[in-house]
Amino acid sequence: MKKIAILGSTGSIGQQALDVISALPDELKVVALTGHKNLELLERQIKAFQPKMFCSSAKPDISYGGEFLSIEEIASHPEVDFVIVATAGKAGLSPTLAALRAGKTVALANKEALVMAGEIIVREASLYQAHILPIDSEHSAIWQCLQGEEDKPQRLFITASGGPFYHYSRSQLAEVTPEQALRHPVWKMGRKITIDSATLMNKGLEVIEAHWLFSFPFDSIEILIHPQSIVHSMVEFMDGSLKAQLSSPDMKLPIQYALSHPQRWSNSGLPRLDWSKIQSLNFEPADYESFPCLKLAMDAGKSGGTYPAVLCAADEVAVDLFLSHRIGFTDIADIVQETLEQHRNISQPSLEEILAADDWARECAASLSPGHCPEPERQSNTGTKS
Amino acid sequence: MKKIAILGSTGSIGQQALDVISALPDELKVVALTGHKNLELLERQIKAFQPKMFCSSAKPDISYGGEFLSIEEIASHPEVDFVIVATAGKAGLSPTLAALRAGKTVALANKEALVMAGEIIVREASLYQAHILPIDSEHSAIWQCLQGEEDKPQRLFITASGGPFYHYSRSQLAEVTPEQALRHPVWKMGRKITIDSATLMNKGLEVIEAHWLFSFPFDSIEILIHPQSIVHSMVEFMDGSLKAQLSSPDMKLPIQYALSHPQRWSNSGLPRLDWSKIQSLNFEPADYESFPCLKLAMDAGKSGGTYPAVLCAADEVAVDLFLSHRIGFTDIADIVQETLEQHRNISQPSLEEILAADDWARECAASLSPGHCPEPERQSNTGTKS
Repeated sequence: MKKIAILGSTGSIGQQALDVISALPDELKVVALTGHKNLELLERQIKAFQPKMFCSSAKPDISYGGEFLSIEEIASHPEVDFVIVATAGKAGLSPTLAALRAGKTVALANKEALVMAGEIIVREASLYQAHILPIDSEHSAIWQCLQGEEDKPQRLFITASGGPFYHYSRSQLAEVTPEQALRHPVWKMGRKITIDSATLMNKGLEVIEAHWLFSFPFDSIEILIHPQSIVHSMVEFMDGSLKAQLSSPDMKLPIQYALSHPQRWSNSGLPRLDWSKIQSLNFEPADYESFPCLKLAMDAGKSGGTYPAVLCAADEVAVDLFLSHRIGFTDIADIVQETLEQHRNISQPSLEEILAADDWARECAASLSPGHCPEPERQSNTGTKS
Repeated sequence: MKKIAILGSTGSIGQQALDVISALPDELKVVALTGHKNLELLERQIKAFQPKMFCSSAKPDISYGGEFLSIEEIASHPEVDFVIVATAGKAGLSPTLAALRAGKTVALANKEALVMAGEIIVREASLYQAHILPIDSEHSAIWQCLQGEEDKPQRLFITASGGPFYHYSRSQLAEVTPEQALRHPVWKMGRKITIDSATLMNKGLEVIEAHWLFSFPFDSIEILIHPQSIVHSMVEFMDGSLKAQLSSPDMKLPIQYALSHPQRWSNSGLPRLDWSKIQSLNFEPADYESFPCLKLAMDAGKSGGTYPAVLCAADEVAVDLFLSHRIGFTDIADIVQETLEQHRNISQPSLEEILAADDWARECAASLSPGHCPEPERQSNTGTKS
């Protein structure tokens, strides 16, 4: 019986993780839940699952036998075997590190942690012999395809649905509203990731994530637009053979696979592909021109240092500005690009330097609409501009 | 260094196996070659590879240090590690059994052996702790997808190109000539298998083969028509996740995979998929009505006993009759069906009973065009009609 902490249980992934756990009571047990602002839902989850511990931004008005702890205390608690990090944004970073340093198995749905601090996370996981498992459907697909293979693959093909605007022109994209952008054609997800999916920023972040999860060079990771979102990614081996993982677009499968690996479990709550309805699986190259966020992210990943943290932070701010109708859809990429251009990179940064770069990037991005960038960053060490 | 015997080195698979071995001189060495009627090619191969032993239907006029042995002696020879059975038709049965009884690893390109005598072959392999590896591209795909998976899959999807006539009507099919049928749209193969591919008999034989190779129930094996022949087959696991294996349609890959497993080897002679040219992978259900051979084969497989041997033998005769313009394309299925209907099945047959059923079926099938079936079979034991 795996004892599971879900960090961010009130979000989209957190709720689906609870669905999976509910369906498999002989294998899985929730021992901790953490939420942020949605206290009402957290309280309902606590009543239903009776976790030994919980955490939220405000202490909920609930009395039961569970203990209120910090998210880091939960992530590293001796009663926890398996930590699902499903918090949004950089909030996942600190508990991820706490869990790894306690030797826990960490299933990461939060991609920002790996994007911002991939080098540190991978190093700490290795140092404390902790395992990082993917929950993102693309990375789960790659992981599934790598099972039983002795040799390193030659190429990874990360698929992308292309989002709702894939064949839009630049001028059509400029007119896109938040309401349109929030209607993803295939996946039902949180708001931030749905917009990132429409700009293809999300795909760029996934490339960085794949680089760290599978210690794979950027130049061997390719993007393929695949509108049906049935092939979740592919791996090419040195003999020219590829393996692909396919399933209905439903996050419960990759969540469950992280929990069941190396086994697989039957679960009637997981959908099955119906081949009488699938006539065609389509593929086309990624359009880096109309969707500049993809290249911005891949370049930031390749450059490394504090660039990926700046990318993430600027994107988060820009997406917020877009969602509140303060900038247009194509301004998201412009703000991220401008912030990256103004940033003075620090290579092999410490965690503090990463967090400082994040703070700076948020201010810079916010100031880019409608005002100006703040003063140039102060360099806190000998970091080089690259 | 694996020491390899190729049984049937002058056929299509045999020649491609030699291409693979030539490209990998540090890993692979040919120690035996056997041919049948194409003595000229066998002599050239012997000159090039200098095998320690060889065999052919007539002793070739060649003097070198190699020894002329029977095909069974070669298959079980102490100097041989790995036997590739690439002979056509039932000729593969006896050397396959000889190799398995000597504990060799046997890579099977010959599907008739498993179709005719699957139960005996699987039992002998288990008894002598010998391994049977697939070379057919579909079965190699399934095998690749099963690597690293702990649990039995739930469904197998064997893909089929559909052959050159997939959307033909019954009346169009009746007019097909051998010359048209020999032009397969994707695969370059021998004559018999190319016709079997056009009737979909080949796919039915593959279902029987998959049943024995993976000890998988017939009712969980499905056929999907996939004209591009890029997805070579798929496996569905109990959690609803599928894995597919993809590659250019080139038999050298599955041949090499059988040789390299569990590793993979780099080989510039193997083609790579070019995703800039793949726009669509299409799938549709199999048409059992226009292609009755598919159902005949699946039913014969399910019924078991001597039916699959009768199916194979009748098909071989019918394909010969078609290739020599003595019957039409749709007569192939009719002759196979009529022969199966006239057969008195023997369940759990001995090898002798299988070979006797094969003999009887050949006579029966031959007599069905243009003459009549011979006398009803004599029952050599208590076999039941099923």
